[in-house]
Amino acid sequence: MLLLHRAVVLRLKQACRLKSIPSRICIQACSINDSFQPQRPSLTFSGDNSSTQGWRVMGTLLGLGAVLAYQDHRCRAAQESTHIYTKEEVSSHTSPETGIWVTLGSEVFDVTEFVDLHPGGPSKLMLAAGGPLEPFWALYAVHNQSHVRELLAQYKIGELNPEDKVAPTVETSDPYADDPVRHPALKVNSQRPFNAEPPPELLTENYITPNPIFFTRNHLPVPNLDPDTYRLHVVGAPGGQSLSLSLDDLHNFPKYEITVTLQCAGNRRSEMTQVKEVKGLEWRTGAISTARWAGARLCDVLAQAGHQLCETEAHVCFEGLDSDPTGTAYGASIPLARAMDPEAEVLLAYEMNGQPLPRDHGFPVRVVVPGVVGARHVKWLGRVSVQPEESYSHWQRRDYKGFSPSVDWDTVDFDSAPSIQELPVQSAITEPRDGETVESGEVTIKGYAWSGGGRAVIRVDVSLDGGLTWQVAKLDGEEQRPRKAWAWRLWQLKAPVPAGQKELNIVCKAVDDGYNVQPDTVAPIWNLRGVLSNAWHRVHVYVSP
Amino acid sequence: MLLLHRAVVLRLKQACRLKSIPSRICIQACSINDSFQPQRPSLTFSGDNSSTQGWRVMGTLLGLGAVLAYQDHRCRAAQESTHIYTKEEVSSHTSPETGIWVTLGSEVFDVTEFVDLHPGGPSKLMLAAGGPLEPFWALYAVHNQSHVRELLAQYKIGELNPEDKVAPTVETSDPYADDPVRHPALKVNSQRPFNAEPPPELLTENYITPNPIFFTRNHLPVPNLDPDTYRLHVVGAPGGQSLSLSLDDLHNFPKYEITVTLQCAGNRRSEMTQVKEVKGLEWRTGAISTARWAGARLCDVLAQAGHQLCETEAHVCFEGLDSDPTGTAYGASIPLARAMDPEAEVLLAYEMNGQPLPRDHGFPVRVVVPGVVGARHVKWLGRVSVQPEESYSHWQRRDYKGFSPSVDWDTVDFDSAPSIQELPVQSAITEPRDGETVESGEVTIKGYAWSGGGRAVIRVDVSLDGGLTWQVAKLDGEEQRPRKAWAWRLWQLKAPVPAGQKELNIVCKAVDDGYNVQPDTVAPIWNLRGVLSNAWHRVHVYVSP
Repeated sequence: MLLLHRAVVLRLKQACRLKSIPSRICIQACSINDSFQPQRPSLTFSGDNSSTQGWRVMGTLLGLGAVLAYQDHRCRAAQESTHIYTKEEVSSHTSPETGIWVTLGSEVFDVTEFVDLHPGGPSKLMLAAGGPLEPFWALYAVHNQSHVRELLAQYKIGELNPEDKVAPTVETSDPYADDPVRHPALKVNSQRPFNAEPPPELLTENYITPNPIFFTRNHLPVPNLDPDTYRLHVVGAPGGQSLSLSLDDLHNFPKYEITVTLQCAGNRRSEMTQVKEVKGLEWRTGAISTARWAGARLCDVLAQAGHQLCETEAHVCFEGLDSDPTGTAYGASIPLARAMDPEAEVLLAYEMNGQPLPRDHGFPVRVVVPGVVGARHVKWLGRVSVQPEESYSHWQRRDYKGFSPSVDWDTVDFDSAPSIQELPVQSAITEPRDGETVESGEVTIKGYAWSGGGRAVIRVDVSLDGGLTWQVAKLDGEEQRPRKAWAWRLWQLKAPVPAGQKELNIVCKAVDDGYNVQPDTVAPIWNLRGVLSNAWHRVHVYVSP
Repeated sequence: MLLLHRAVVLRLKQACRLKSIPSRICIQACSINDSFQPQRPSLTFSGDNSSTQGWRVMGTLLGLGAVLAYQDHRCRAAQESTHIYTKEEVSSHTSPETGIWVTLGSEVFDVTEFVDLHPGGPSKLMLAAGGPLEPFWALYAVHNQSHVRELLAQYKIGELNPEDKVAPTVETSDPYADDPVRHPALKVNSQRPFNAEPPPELLTENYITPNPIFFTRNHLPVPNLDPDTYRLHVVGAPGGQSLSLSLDDLHNFPKYEITVTLQCAGNRRSEMTQVKEVKGLEWRTGAISTARWAGARLCDVLAQAGHQLCETEAHVCFEGLDSDPTGTAYGASIPLARAMDPEAEVLLAYEMNGQPLPRDHGFPVRVVVPGVVGARHVKWLGRVSVQPEESYSHWQRRDYKGFSPSVDWDTVDFDSAPSIQELPVQSAITEPRDGETVESGEVTIKGYAWSGGGRAVIRVDVSLDGGLTWQVAKLDGEEQRPRKAWAWRLWQLKAPVPAGQKELNIVCKAVDDGYNVQPDTVAPIWNLRGVLSNAWHRVHVYVSP
């Protein structure tokens, strides 16, 4: 069906090429309409320069796309009488068969025939199918240009029903009722608590993940904290003094900003489930994201409370201000040695990509422990203490641990395994997607790679034949500092598709600077909680004839 | 053939059991002969208490073995006239077919029928077949007991030819002529330069590897250095002063002693060769050993020369006093950050297991870099300097690096890969051996596991069915300190042999505390130098019916 649709669009493209000169003139004529404004300015993302530049190029391409596609729609737009549609009607148009509709402000557009011409790729426009464009345009500022709006205008088919704004029914008994509004691109694995990941085609679109689509791993309802009354309690060392720090107090510590990739221990769990059932959320490849985090160093705050490194092993325990109905808060701990090491750069972060932390990511303060599993980056941080033992939290002692494939729920002894801190080397393919059809000639493969403990990714090998032969991918993204490689590398490989090949078994595997590698297969690392899923990532694609 | 021999011995054992009481009396009668003394006291190994204790138990068992086997040999020994044998004759008796002969002092023994009764296992006695017992008895002090000597006396068949001591012909043009004498148990991979590994059955016999069988990786002839005139040159920092340290000077720094496992990057290379030819020595599983190293901390010595950590990346370059005919010395470097970190515990070691370093291991001083590939532990250390770049040594820049399996000698770009420092997680099976026949009922599997960078081994999984199902092995050896797990863990698993099974495909794989795992197979990590061979270790054994 998709192939059929592609064929139609290709014919349309060919038709447009013949008419490109008159189309350009039409765009000039229509460029006075400048009224489209995103309606959720809070979602605006200030991307870094490099990604903006990339989008400028795309913007140019988009202009060309506009030229190509415009002609066939111009007249239709003019003829359109003002139809009124409900949100429900719009949301039922999400496929080539039903038509693909989107909204911007109160206007409704049928972009079915534009999808394959979308310069950012059809899959990215499809993320908005059946709903508003604003959250996506907020991510990619390049859309806020007059020629983009002109192009869209040609696809207008009507207006949203003005009486369609239904006041949300708030169930006061629902502890999740006050959770924030989320970005529609997120693939939701659980609504309560909210757990969601960005789709692969957005995940590696930017080296820095935009805040609205940063993967979200909540264990409990999101607390709604007042920044003015917020206090962080730091238990003092014997002989030191306990601290009760306001946000302003935290801002008075020296501010550090570092780029850190966070990954959930359950990232890629869905691949383990295919081997044998596990307990846990069905994360695909998106439980990983990268941001620039800014805040005070934990070591500075601990020092002010009189703490110092001691000979015996100790742990810094964190408690969140999120809690379950019994009042039990989320908690976790890291070794004191890591917390006190300035080189480990553990932060009490109050900024994410230059903004105050979003509520889903721990507003107003979270811990960021570079190189360590996401579960220790406690959000909505309320309390810090130094203890001779690890946190007694469920999530420290009865979860986030790895076991042998032979261990099941009848035999598991959680005390027998150490809590996960540093994570092993990881990589995944984000493009193409499993089951996709790629063009013959050349295929572009993209993905991410990361390792725990500050170990840099030094190489990504990619195979088109299931692992028999390998090619070395090009590493993109920031070069990492030695021993402080806290952030991922994006990578890509452009490879010729072997002639006559009808299918490709694409595989990737990464190597870190400790020369650790990923295991070949999932089954031998299967574990009952489905964590640490870092086998070679595999996608199977078809080659178009 | 081996099975036939076993059958004969079993019948002998049965015969002896019936005669055990008179045998005991005979041993008492003979115990006045106390003349056996190892002739190479320099090889004496002072093992730790725990291993001595183990051998005491074995000694008792040996006593029982003596009782069982004694009776049939008593008369033969008495009847023996003094036959004279040459060393060549002795060395040709190394199998059940030819007879298995050994010597102690000037006496020759035929131990063919005792081999299967050896309490330490037949394979260990077979290591001495055709040669002197002294080097082995020096390793295992339990042998120096009167009842062991009495037992041996019963197998005496004659004396060594006193004129057999041929003066070695020293070729003065041979740069290796002055290399030290080595232990005969070592499996030699290269004589010049000398490279050898202990056999698997000795490798994990002790947590601490006895000096004489510690694996030896030399790149050049062994220098013969005078400890009285030895000087270590440490280039001073700008504004600091250069040092010329005698051995006494080094002893004046605070002394640190730590247990560290060294592993050659080429350990288990022979498994890579089976995939495709590589350049390098054919190490099996024995290019790894563990010792207690004592010496001055490198950070203390560098501080005395005025060095401190700097913001920019720098490297500590080491030069050995071994050199090739052009005068080029062995060299390597490590990052200054590691060298200056007291927690990294980098040593300038002058003791190995309580003894001065043996010549093969760097006498009088070598570097010990815990958690890092053996190649950086420069032996016969002559010079230390701090440089903005890594060592320009061949072994730093044109060797000891990992590459993709797709890279061959035509395409390799050594500058494209980082030099190996920390090594990935590793494990291997030392018992049973590949191709061996094991008893049905229960099988005991033993081996070692280790990881680089101070990461502790937290689990070893063992499979009897090629990796389909797994059991967790018991970890032996010293518990490791957090972040300073510099030494291996020995492990074992006693597992029932599934009924009716004729063969077992035994596999092991280890997990470290960064939850790094070993890759399943060798081919995808194959590289042209055959380094970093850490795939699952596999042995195939037969089950006796």
